[in-house]
Amino acid sequence: MKGFAPDEFRARVAGLQGGMAAAGIDALLLTTPPDVFYVTGFLTRFWESPARPWFVVVPAGGAPVAVIPTIGADLMGKTWIGDIRTWTAPDLIDDGVSLLGDTLAGLVAPAGRIGLPIGHETHLRMPLADFLRLQSSLAPREFVDSTDILRRVREVKSPAEVDRIRTICAVADRAFARVPEIAPPGVALDHVFREFQRLLLQEGADWVPYLAGGAGPGGYGDVISPADARPLSPGDVLMLDTGAVKAGYFCDFDRNWAVGDAGDASRRAYETLYAATEAGLAAARPGATAADLFHAMHRVIGQDGDAGRLGHGLGLSLTEWPSIIPTDHTVMREGMVMTLEPGLEIAPGRIMVHEENIVIRNGGAELLSARAPAELPVLE
Amino acid sequence: MKGFAPDEFRARVAGLQGGMAAAGIDALLLTTPPDVFYVTGFLTRFWESPARPWFVVVPAGGAPVAVIPTIGADLMGKTWIGDIRTWTAPDLIDDGVSLLGDTLAGLVAPAGRIGLPIGHETHLRMPLADFLRLQSSLAPREFVDSTDILRRVREVKSPAEVDRIRTICAVADRAFARVPEIAPPGVALDHVFREFQRLLLQEGADWVPYLAGGAGPGGYGDVISPADARPLSPGDVLMLDTGAVKAGYFCDFDRNWAVGDAGDASRRAYETLYAATEAGLAAARPGATAADLFHAMHRVIGQDGDAGRLGHGLGLSLTEWPSIIPTDHTVMREGMVMTLEPGLEIAPGRIMVHEENIVIRNGGAELLSARAPAELPVLE
Repeated sequence: MKGFAPDEFRARVAGLQGGMAAAGIDALLLTTPPDVFYVTGFLTRFWESPARPWFVVVPAGGAPVAVIPTIGADLMGKTWIGDIRTWTAPDLIDDGVSLLGDTLAGLVAPAGRIGLPIGHETHLRMPLADFLRLQSSLAPREFVDSTDILRRVREVKSPAEVDRIRTICAVADRAFARVPEIAPPGVALDHVFREFQRLLLQEGADWVPYLAGGAGPGGYGDVISPADARPLSPGDVLMLDTGAVKAGYFCDFDRNWAVGDAGDASRRAYETLYAATEAGLAAARPGATAADLFHAMHRVIGQDGDAGRLGHGLGLSLTEWPSIIPTDHTVMREGMVMTLEPGLEIAPGRIMVHEENIVIRNGGAELLSARAPAELPVLE
Repeated sequence: MKGFAPDEFRARVAGLQGGMAAAGIDALLLTTPPDVFYVTGFLTRFWESPARPWFVVVPAGGAPVAVIPTIGADLMGKTWIGDIRTWTAPDLIDDGVSLLGDTLAGLVAPAGRIGLPIGHETHLRMPLADFLRLQSSLAPREFVDSTDILRRVREVKSPAEVDRIRTICAVADRAFARVPEIAPPGVALDHVFREFQRLLLQEGADWVPYLAGGAGPGGYGDVISPADARPLSPGDVLMLDTGAVKAGYFCDFDRNWAVGDAGDASRRAYETLYAATEAGLAAARPGATAADLFHAMHRVIGQDGDAGRLGHGLGLSLTEWPSIIPTDHTVMREGMVMTLEPGLEIAPGRIMVHEENIVIRNGGAELLSARAPAELPVLE
């Protein structure tokens, strides 16, 4: 898959700059893989190494400036970014801090303000001690929270972004369809996890940053554990939940199976979650809030207690803002990509979770994942 | 592979608490996947979601306290940690900040000091705005940099940790040995990347967080790019560099191949890098500094200009302290696991890099990866 056209990046940056102008922000400092990729197209797995920080500055006008370790200059040079400033990292004394400080000082007047995403679902990917040095070297310039500026732009996906998410969802659809090949009764769950990742790669994923799931009699215990060596047994419910990546974009959905006969309670739970997802699909249209989606699904589930999060944004990260929880009143807009993820407790310590990926259209939700079967499929 | 025994974690925590006592630190706050795993054994791929922060506090004495989202309580409950405090995350108003603040206030007197890794190769995995709130709620308690306390303990691997790294190195060895199966001339590089990840999983990796590499006539352009669709051609040098994971621990090494005849310059470069690695192996013993290892290898390479980093620590992360650079004077100690990673420029824009993984023993370096062949292997 080819890179995005420069116009795609120009539109993204213009969106950010519109928000910056409205908020009186003179430059935006970005440090994380999704934020840097979003404005530059710089895509590498090298972020896995915590040794080096990477910086991109979005000025009030014009293209971003990259302030990065020399080792990344070649790859950054293949993007649309022209102004690339490098230092030899790691530098134990000054790991890009002066170079970044000089860059920001050149773009922001002493009375100016520098935006930084420091709110919900963010972190600063640089040593905090270096940030404190940067902050004092740039005084009296002020650092201010610009999480909202970033999220309002990143939340709405362009047609090219939706295409990428649809592509990786289709990869996962094909891999899920082949689960009967790898999960006969008696196979250990960790073997299933390994083989499912192999299927995702074979079907076209570039890499598989996330796989979770579970298996247990009539339901599973939780949805974040790595797999153990317990063999799949008749009566189990198996769930696999993947965040695979292609061309930088994630899918994030799951599928459930009964191993032989997993009992009436499992089948009923499945039907309830299928119906809850239907309610979520019907509610997911521009103007509805994340909280509306929560209540639409929660009403069908009909359980008391802590329902957790019933979905979230999706795209450059496995999970993004907003959250489908009662307190999130973010309004759905055309082009937002979301997961719908209702879950319920079948019995104490036995849960089931469904998940689909959608894009919000003016006419309503459009599925990006193929809809799960209406009845709990059986592995035999 | 089973979890570590509780005594393993007690020894780690005792090591940290020794450093804390010497530095007058009353509690240590940890927020990243490797740090949290190191003291608790909490292993999950759920960190891929940036939606929720996770906290572990190491007190001056006794076991750590986990302050985590409810969704992780079940999995944390399977570790040796007894004191697990939870909140329903995400919480848009107070995402664990009060609970963490109360926990720290209960462990640290108002005149006390809270350690936090904020130095080189660290980052704080929580929203900075939340940290600032935490900091002011805990005043006059002081937050101080404790990067050194953490790294001095984490750098030296226990026998059980070395076993895990050896195990994942052996997985990668087996996968590298099978590269001729997947990389005949004419196959696209992105296909090779996909298939190599599949081999790693088949040979026993739990997941593959890192794969980089390159292919080009007589050398490759850089070592951090994702693969493109260019087919392998006679005369290319192919390199694959992987950080695969098993039971929470990484390998990180590479291998090179000629596609047919890649020319004398490639063969000579390979021999030089092989010899440079030999020099690094000979130099890698307790008492030598990281800079000594750099110079031992750099002397053999014999090139001017920016040599970059010629290796680094390895374990819970793809890369860890120290760095094999001229300015890093960290002294090698028994049990440190390192990569040796010499590289050189064969021609302008054409490089080659070798990499092996070792553990420092009193008698000298012990290889954890199988030594690369002495001559550039050929794919035909």
